Amino acid sequence: MSTFGTNFRVTTYGESHCLSVGCIVDGCPPGMALTESDIQPQMTRRRPGQSAITTPRNEKDKVEIQSGTEFGITLGTPIGMRVMNENQRKQDYGNQTMDLYPRPSHADWTYLEKYGVKASSGGGRSSARETIGRVAAGAIAEKYLREAYGIEIVAFTTSIGNEFLFPPTPEHPSCATNPEYLKLIDTISRAKVDEFLPVRCPDEAVSKRMEDLVASYKEKEDSIGGTVTCVIRNCPTGLGEPCFDKLEATLAHAMLSIPATKGFEIGSGFGGTQIPGSIHNDPYIKAPATPAGATPSGHPSVQRPRLTTKTNNSGGIQGGISNGAPIYFTVAFKPPATIGQAQATATYDAGEGVLEAKGRHDPCVVPRAIPIVEAMAALVIIDAVLAQSSRAAARSLLPPLKGVVPIHGKAEAL
Amino acid sequence: MSTFGTNFRVTTYGESHCLSVGCIVDGCPPGMALTESDIQPQMTRRRPGQSAITTPRNEKDKVEIQSGTEFGITLGTPIGMRVMNENQRKQDYGNQTMDLYPRPSHADWTYLEKYGVKASSGGGRSSARETIGRVAAGAIAEKYLREAYGIEIVAFTTSIGNEFLFPPTPEHPSCATNPEYLKLIDTISRAKVDEFLPVRCPDEAVSKRMEDLVASYKEKEDSIGGTVTCVIRNCPTGLGEPCFDKLEATLAHAMLSIPATKGFEIGSGFGGTQIPGSIHNDPYIKAPATPAGATPSGHPSVQRPRLTTKTNNSGGIQGGISNGAPIYFTVAFKPPATIGQAQATATYDAGEGVLEAKGRHDPCVVPRAIPIVEAMAALVIIDAVLAQSSRAAARSLLPPLKGVVPIHGKAEAL
Amino acid sequence: MSTFGTNFRVTTYGESHCLSVGCIVDGCPPGMALTESDIQPQMTRRRPGQSAITTPRNEKDKVEIQSGTEFGITLGTPIGMRVMNENQRKQDYGNQTMDLYPRPSHADWTYLEKYGVKASSGGGRSSARETIGRVAAGAIAEKYLREAYGIEIVAFTTSIGNEFLFPPTPEHPSCATNPEYLKLIDTISRAKVDEFLPVRCPDEAVSKRMEDLVASYKEKEDSIGGTVTCVIRNCPTGLGEPCFDKLEATLAHAMLSIPATKGFEIGSGFGGTQIPGSIHNDPYIKAPATPAGATPSGHPSVQRPRLTTKTNNSGGIQGGISNGAPIYFTVAFKPPATIGQAQATATYDAGEGVLEAKGRHDPCVVPRAIPIVEAMAALVIIDAVLAQSSRAAARSLLPPLKGVVPIHGKAEAL
Amino acid sequence: MSTFGTNFRVTTYGESHCLSVGCIVDGCPPGMALTESDIQPQMTRRRPGQSAITTPRNEKDKVEIQSGTEFGITLGTPIGMRVMNENQRKQDYGNQTMDLYPRPSHADWTYLEKYGVKASSGGGRSSARETIGRVAAGAIAEKYLREAYGIEIVAFTTSIGNEFLFPPTPEHPSCATNPEYLKLIDTISRAKVDEFLPVRCPDEAVSKRMEDLVASYKEKEDSIGGTVTCVIRNCPTGLGEPCFDKLEATLAHAMLSIPATKGFEIGSGFGGTQIPGSIHNDPYIKAPATPAGATPSGHPSVQRPRLTTKTNNSGGIQGGISNGAPIYFTVAFKPPATIGQAQATATYDAGEGVLEAKGRHDPCVVPRAIPIVEAMAALVIIDAVLAQSSRAAARSLLPPLKGVVPIHGKAEAL
Repeated sequence: MSTFGTNFRVTTYGESHCLSVGCIVDGCPPGMALTESDIQPQMTRRRPGQSAITTPRNEKDKVEIQSGTEFGITLGTPIGMRVMNENQRKQDYGNQTMDLYPRPSHADWTYLEKYGVKASSGGGRSSARETIGRVAAGAIAEKYLREAYGIEIVAFTTSIGNEFLFPPTPEHPSCATNPEYLKLIDTISRAKVDEFLPVRCPDEAVSKRMEDLVASYKEKEDSIGGTVTCVIRNCPTGLGEPCFDKLEATLAHAMLSIPATKGFEIGSGFGGTQIPGSIHNDPYIKAPATPAGATPSGHPSVQRPRLTTKTNNSGGIQGGISNGAPIYFTVAFKPPATIGQAQATATYDAGEGVLEAKGRHDPCVVPRAIPIVEAMAALVIIDAVLAQSSRAAARSLLPPLKGVVPIHGKAEAL
Repeated sequence: MSTFGTNFRVTTYGESHCLSVGCIVDGCPPGMALTESDIQPQMTRRRPGQSAITTPRNEKDKVEIQSGTEFGITLGTPIGMRVMNENQRKQDYGNQTMDLYPRPSHADWTYLEKYGVKASSGGGRSSARETIGRVAAGAIAEKYLREAYGIEIVAFTTSIGNEFLFPPTPEHPSCATNPEYLKLIDTISRAKVDEFLPVRCPDEAVSKRMEDLVASYKEKEDSIGGTVTCVIRNCPTGLGEPCFDKLEATLAHAMLSIPATKGFEIGSGFGGTQIPGSIHNDPYIKAPATPAGATPSGHPSVQRPRLTTKTNNSGGIQGGISNGAPIYFTVAFKPPATIGQAQATATYDAGEGVLEAKGRHDPCVVPRAIPIVEAMAALVIIDAVLAQSSRAAARSLLPPLKGVVPIHGKAEAL
Repeated sequence: MSTFGTNFRVTTYGESHCLSVGCIVDGCPPGMALTESDIQPQMTRRRPGQSAITTPRNEKDKVEIQSGTEFGITLGTPIGMRVMNENQRKQDYGNQTMDLYPRPSHADWTYLEKYGVKASSGGGRSSARETIGRVAAGAIAEKYLREAYGIEIVAFTTSIGNEFLFPPTPEHPSCATNPEYLKLIDTISRAKVDEFLPVRCPDEAVSKRMEDLVASYKEKEDSIGGTVTCVIRNCPTGLGEPCFDKLEATLAHAMLSIPATKGFEIGSGFGGTQIPGSIHNDPYIKAPATPAGATPSGHPSVQRPRLTTKTNNSGGIQGGISNGAPIYFTVAFKPPATIGQAQATATYDAGEGVLEAKGRHDPCVVPRAIPIVEAMAALVIIDAVLAQSSRAAARSLLPPLKGVVPIHGKAEAL
Repeated sequence: MSTFGTNFRVTTYGESHCLSVGCIVDGCPPGMALTESDIQPQMTRRRPGQSAITTPRNEKDKVEIQSGTEFGITLGTPIGMRVMNENQRKQDYGNQTMDLYPRPSHADWTYLEKYGVKASSGGGRSSARETIGRVAAGAIAEKYLREAYGIEIVAFTTSIGNEFLFPPTPEHPSCATNPEYLKLIDTISRAKVDEFLPVRCPDEAVSKRMEDLVASYKEKEDSIGGTVTCVIRNCPTGLGEPCFDKLEATLAHAMLSIPATKGFEIGSGFGGTQIPGSIHNDPYIKAPATPAGATPSGHPSVQRPRLTTKTNNSGGIQGGISNGAPIYFTVAFKPPATIGQAQATATYDAGEGVLEAKGRHDPCVVPRAIPIVEAMAALVIIDAVLAQSSRAAARSLLPPLKGVVPIHGKAEAL
């Protein structure tokens, strides 16, 4: 099904060649200022063909809100959104390449096996165009998280091919133990990331090497993959459900649902498997005092926790539940399947042949994936925030427990 | 919420010190032979303290079916299952270590932040004991998948610390391109894996090195992580929903919901980001003919597809949908948080101190995680199988399309 | 949330004064012929101002399919649908009646209490306009049910005020025991119902009396309620889930979700509480042979059951599961809350006053509710059909049970 | 599926002849005092064979909490509950009546059609024993609603056969317009209801007539139906979701999921269709001041609304959302299908025959259904309360709207 989330629920529709793509966002809190101008920037960041000199006012992929707001205020009812497809013409069928061959590592063949009907675009909903609805919904979620909690979500490129922002070393098999990395995690902003267009890797030298690498693959009519790291700062504690819906599990679900992804790691990740527990464990320390009125939302109900951790190998999540430290994770993207080179493969009826794709192809999807990663992160977090605020609100109405559940040796109601 | 799956839905209950742990399995197909003896073996494989000489009849963690079967046949109604806790005594509160300190990288503190109530066991449901219900449910799912489709699910240890079964090399940044690895994926069995107890890594030399490594961490009262790879063979094509519930997304969700996991990768995974598209793409070839009657279920309705892929960097999934090739993925497990070494950390009320845990601790959870990975894989696959069989059954009742949706130039109903 | 169904899932959006209303239909079986012309007729039947002489080509409320089909064939992907709102102008706020008074028995006040934001239309999503998305989705569901199973769904007016098509009598406290009623249930068609516009009660004399009654309320600037009965014929057996999602429970849910409904009864209903069990029980009889090829879908997989019931007080459902007999139920609609008469009531800030609504008001919603009742019935049935076909398909792949579950004394696999 | 609710989610298991019946309650707010003694009273009220002289300590159907509490406090984690079956012996198959005949108006035949497997008890989960899990879960929900909001839920018998507590009259086609009825709704308590055992109709004369009527059916080896009315007092405003999950829709779903139900009506119900809008509309009046500290939970966050309605034909719900007035509804129960009289019917293989059931049969289920109705009402309300508290909590964190959404002519933030 094409639905994500329980409390903040997004349902998307649309494929490459239909009339429009879009989504319905159900469960958006009422009373929030919201217009298309809150949504368009991320739509534009997602568009192909961007560079440092891209004009900021890109009229393509223009989102139209259909419902759920009045006078620029959310009503709490479903928000319909729509973006027209420019190329609405369905492909005519005929003796064309796309009709003969399922493209290798595309979804053409698996869609046909699944549905028994071949869309003219081949893989139908597996098109990158489907992600438009996600980015639009994510922008709404982000706005709420920012206004209510001051949550910041920033993604950036951490590797392309074998060019890494933080290459693994014997000392740091995971960059989670590298203080430089943690400092970056704590401070990186979207504005900073976009200074490094087109690759969006916030380091001048590495960014240049990545750009060159992508160019070399483009020249060879080949493609290459990479990784995106995303950080979520200022999350309240208590997000995530124990057991099946741990916060890292829903983040992994969200990220692996993005086209072309092959992996996900939270905190110390795969490298963390090589670090001894004595180093990997994150000891607790007293949290620094928050200046009065520091809460971005200005609401005293958003309290900062008493403790934080000295290190952050956990990536802000312990036992599936957020601990208030920055949440960070990395997502792997494969090399795009569409390449200009000829490929020996089989036709739908199992005949041997050679497929040659024509036209412009994007040799690396990583930079454009960044707003999509941010959008999916926002959808996960807002869903968890609404679940937890329901639980906290429910508990707050119960009579206080008297001396039954002590901590640190004293009989103290929690 | 503690529920997993839509069509085959598992709800678990229980924490360390309560009366029992268990689950309800809803949506199990009716008419399948099922008794406790189908479930117990995986329960036993999950138990601590196993080795090659473990007696096969372990009376601990004995599962009792409460409902949903009669005369050893599933009725199609919910199957309740229960396993008694041996240590039902709740901890008395007092001036104990567990009351003073949230254990670093455990769930003690995040649970308290989430629920405002401290369970005597600290992290409540984050206990490894919670996985009992998953393994029981997974065993039922597996039986169905085996009987109806001949699906085989096998997990094994691929690394502990820096000891790898297939270390990454410049030639093979992902082992997905290594023919030796693919051969292992195609042939490995549970019986073979269990020949290599206690570490369950199917290579004598590597297994020995891993065992030594674990022993060295045990001696230091420290701990270490590792990775588990799991393969699912004989999956039908068409599993997985496009968009949010891609098959790799639900697998990632399932795996990251297992306690102590830090990462997931499907097919070529993180290493695959370094492989050019021209190599990474999996070309199609004609599938080898299946011998008559080869379908394990003996039902002609389970057909093998016409095409397969020459390589399998996709890990059996393209565009979020299974293509019939073996599905394989790897899961990262962190070093266990409970270590014997003293740790400088803070108390609940932010005082500084040193926490010393006593008792026997497992220095590496990887070998025991194997049946849990297999169980969660089975739960994902059965849910996808039931969704897809509903779709296929629904389509089969429609009047055939006449010449509308052609493939390879001919007007042919699909 | 604005979502209905699990396997065939409809999500709607839109209120009175926004840009458009519409829905996303997810889970429609692939490979079905579908264009706007399949959907428009029910949209048109739902429009106000219809009579026997209404032109068949009503250009208002024109539905546009956004996605999910190509060349008039469903792809199996989400179907987006949109209907423009004509009056998109939001009401300016000011010292107007609607700003001062919550209208009695409307949703103005409860919406404000719920969301803390007042939509210009008062009750926002409680508008009858919201039902457009339901009718569009229902038309798609109906087409599938008709093509695959030959299912027919027909609703008609059974009472307006105290004018009844079958008034309760001491002999028949429920019309379920009246053979005349059962004969109507078995034969009524939509074409027949629409012969009796505007009231849609298929009896000339009663229809005339109802029309006069409505006219008398219109004259008094008052309003009146009534009941709609709906029959679903040719349903397969086995629909409905035991326990919480019994078929009558999901039908009741669907019907009470239609604006202005106050009650639901299945089969003998409330009157059935007065009938002794010895009469109320439906004895089994051998089902009449179905002529070869009689299945409308032409698919032999849709088999008619061996037994049927002699009477049908159960309304086609026993133990929450369909038994193959016609399913019929009745829905109560209250008198419309908008009346021309002056009403003494309170303002939002609890001041006393008199509210006078101006303009044209519909004195009875019953006739227009008919396509909405049919749509919601179709959504319930298709969801149940897809759930049951998944179960049946899953079971069919298991090895046959040998002599374990006998019926009538013989060891016979079922 | 056997799951009810989204935020407070109940999953039940068990049929007549298995080891135990029970449920898992997921989403119970943490920090609430809870032991078996909070649950047992409703379990006992549900048991057969009760009368005014029933001993209060009935040891049958004893519930055991398995998990989710410690030291009598809820942890917020899933609460497993179990009740042993006394008759765990599955029926042997043989040439018995139950093997030959599907019992008329039972679920024997529909279950067989659905699952293809015959449970020894015939209709498997359709057994009244399945309701045990509901009552246990409902008791937990009720406790929360009472402690946090002072909500009271009371059900009572309003008719058996043609004996009515409030028979419909020309003046009052619905008792909703009868002030006597509304007074009863406002004041009735469970203690009062149980004074009128065995029928639980709170009027001495009517109760006596009902008792005699039931006795006469018992003598004839026949059965009879009736209705139960339920009132929910002190509900907060704002409960219920617009569109598909209107509060009356989820109540209807819940009630029609109880075995043997045939109808549901909210507020004025079916009778209300005969009342003109000018009488049926509920005008607003200023709500009476609540005495300081009157909120049972003692929490100032539970505020009483500013307005209430003068009449209550709406049954406390407008536009699908609670308005703070008492919510009341009526549920129809059919005559039990099990009767002692011989019935001419067909065997499973369509042979003609006569079925004679032996043993003790309950001629009327209405009185025992009362705690089940209350339990299901509690499950609906707690789910809606948690959804709404999440929404309200989410909104409360947003910056206040400035002068954008006015009411009554003034620019006022809501």
